[in-house]
Amino acid sequence: MKSHNFITRDESAMYYECGYSADNAILLRFGSELKFITDSRYASEARQLCKKNIAIEIIESGNIQLEAITQIQKHNIKYLQFDPTRMCVDEYFAIKDITILEPNPNFTQEKRMVKTDEEIMILLESQRLNLKAFDSFAKFIAQEGKEKDEKFLWYKISDILSNFGQFPLSFEPIIGIESNAAKPHALPSDRTFLQNGDTLLLDCGLKHKRYCSDCTRTALFTDKDFTFNKNQDFSNLQSHKKDSPLSWQEKQKIYDIVRKAQMNAIQNLRSGMSGKEIDKLARDVIEQSGYGKYFLHSTGHGIGLDIHEMPFISKRSETIIEDGMVFSIEPGIYLENVFGVRIEDLVVVKNGRAEILQ
Amino acid sequence: MKSHNFITRDESAMYYECGYSADNAILLRFGSELKFITDSRYASEARQLCKKNIAIEIIESGNIQLEAITQIQKHNIKYLQFDPTRMCVDEYFAIKDITILEPNPNFTQEKRMVKTDEEIMILLESQRLNLKAFDSFAKFIAQEGKEKDEKFLWYKISDILSNFGQFPLSFEPIIGIESNAAKPHALPSDRTFLQNGDTLLLDCGLKHKRYCSDCTRTALFTDKDFTFNKNQDFSNLQSHKKDSPLSWQEKQKIYDIVRKAQMNAIQNLRSGMSGKEIDKLARDVIEQSGYGKYFLHSTGHGIGLDIHEMPFISKRSETIIEDGMVFSIEPGIYLENVFGVRIEDLVVVKNGRAEILQ
Repeated sequence: MKSHNFITRDESAMYYECGYSADNAILLRFGSELKFITDSRYASEARQLCKKNIAIEIIESGNIQLEAITQIQKHNIKYLQFDPTRMCVDEYFAIKDITILEPNPNFTQEKRMVKTDEEIMILLESQRLNLKAFDSFAKFIAQEGKEKDEKFLWYKISDILSNFGQFPLSFEPIIGIESNAAKPHALPSDRTFLQNGDTLLLDCGLKHKRYCSDCTRTALFTDKDFTFNKNQDFSNLQSHKKDSPLSWQEKQKIYDIVRKAQMNAIQNLRSGMSGKEIDKLARDVIEQSGYGKYFLHSTGHGIGLDIHEMPFISKRSETIIEDGMVFSIEPGIYLENVFGVRIEDLVVVKNGRAEILQ
Repeated sequence: MKSHNFITRDESAMYYECGYSADNAILLRFGSELKFITDSRYASEARQLCKKNIAIEIIESGNIQLEAITQIQKHNIKYLQFDPTRMCVDEYFAIKDITILEPNPNFTQEKRMVKTDEEIMILLESQRLNLKAFDSFAKFIAQEGKEKDEKFLWYKISDILSNFGQFPLSFEPIIGIESNAAKPHALPSDRTFLQNGDTLLLDCGLKHKRYCSDCTRTALFTDKDFTFNKNQDFSNLQSHKKDSPLSWQEKQKIYDIVRKAQMNAIQNLRSGMSGKEIDKLARDVIEQSGYGKYFLHSTGHGIGLDIHEMPFISKRSETIIEDGMVFSIEPGIYLENVFGVRIEDLVVVKNGRAEILQ
């Protein structure tokens, strides 16, 4: 890279640099100065909320792209980094003749990949609030969950997670009963009701001080009890007749494989490994048990201001893991139309090893 | 355009064509056949939920961009429309050498600009549900709104709007008390409490059968009553001392100008006019009253599967308005740190004139 100058419209990148972002804004860095270009709807808030201890100019414009071009020309900027995975074609062609655009995929995410201690504390707090919501929701399920449909349960967890509007959510919660748990990103249905002997998958998170949390549990619902504790015991099911094609022993087996895959990755990952080596730690356990083709996604993703950010823990990820990185470990097995399990925790890498945020 | 073939990742475009969409998917049209390429998280739902009466192939792939390239090559596609305002630079460069990419800005939105009777009925129903939520919220405010902070009110309206999770929202509700109403897209604050004599701006909408609604009211809160009825009477304020730099007469004057601007546009717009001519109908009223520079945005936007879509009713919009188009008319006046008013309704063009959806 010939320069640290850059252009971005990415809201997380803006927030990281300025402490404020808007959905119609362009952030430019020229040397050590930032230019925050936005329209009149947001300019007033930008002036109030952008960090005070940085060199930043707020520029109000009805045409932010044209204003960005004017600024690049006015300051005679020779080189400008951009993210080709995010910049749109028309913006690229509007700018490419006035400066040398240097493609740098995901450069704004790379900057945020290793978290500061302060960021790690916020992420920990975010996940603790999330886990507290899991506990409250489990109590609700145990008392009143029976016969409730997925859509209602989806609403209920959104309510609990947000603490009645206090926290935005990291993403729309994913909740799936029994065979719907086999869809890794299921839409909640109002025709599927929680019944005795069902498994319930819940994947959700909230934002605390704008940092995301994320957790998944797959748990067994019976008349007797309900808990999101990590290790589920399906033997309660033996006395129940269910319309599932799987016996409780088969469900227990699948659950235990996913749990073992997750623990294998968490316990054995080390800094210095690549994302794909860590992915393999989880994937090998599932493949060796014969369910390899039912593990439909990658093992994990970085988390911070974005719910999905670098480093990615996937088959193809060459990113080298370092201390201070925070990411999910979330293997799963999905038997279409039958049954699914995913278990997800967040880890931070400290002294070369993973520590679970909890 | 040399062909009707296209490529898009836009979810509303996908839903319009297929009845299903996913956030990691590419939709291709080759002649009369659609190819829906998505990863394993969504493929199972795509197979279930895509329309049954169209020629569509669901293709599952771990690398949807590479799969799209393979399909383009396999079917020997010579021309392909794309939207340069949405396609990212890296995708453009990955595809441009294997086919002739024909730039067609917003082509997927243009297709949806004139609504069918069925779509108009759904939009009407969506807005009616929205207006019902305004009424319920007004009752709540009248009874319990006093001393509540914006963040709490924001949560409350989200709850009422969604009907406890039944409806997704069109966008995060915008709620602003008094001077916060002067920020057209204010973040809700937990330090601003609703007091006697405050004006309250509420801008919100929900999605019904995936179609968006949108409405804004600016209303006066007093100890005596609260209503979102369109015409507000500020004379109740005359006996109250307020810390606002504006008298009730000035507030009433600003409110009445905005209302007049809105009615002027709604009553006088005709099919055959351009978006900018309609914008001018509202803008002229505000400019002639001396508040032109405080009307910070455009007069309106189309609405449908997207909350903002074509036609745009702005200073620069050349779009010719036709029967069947549905859009908002929402002028506003914003005095920074002091006071703001916006009034918004949705209209459908029928027999050449605007009819309010209500």
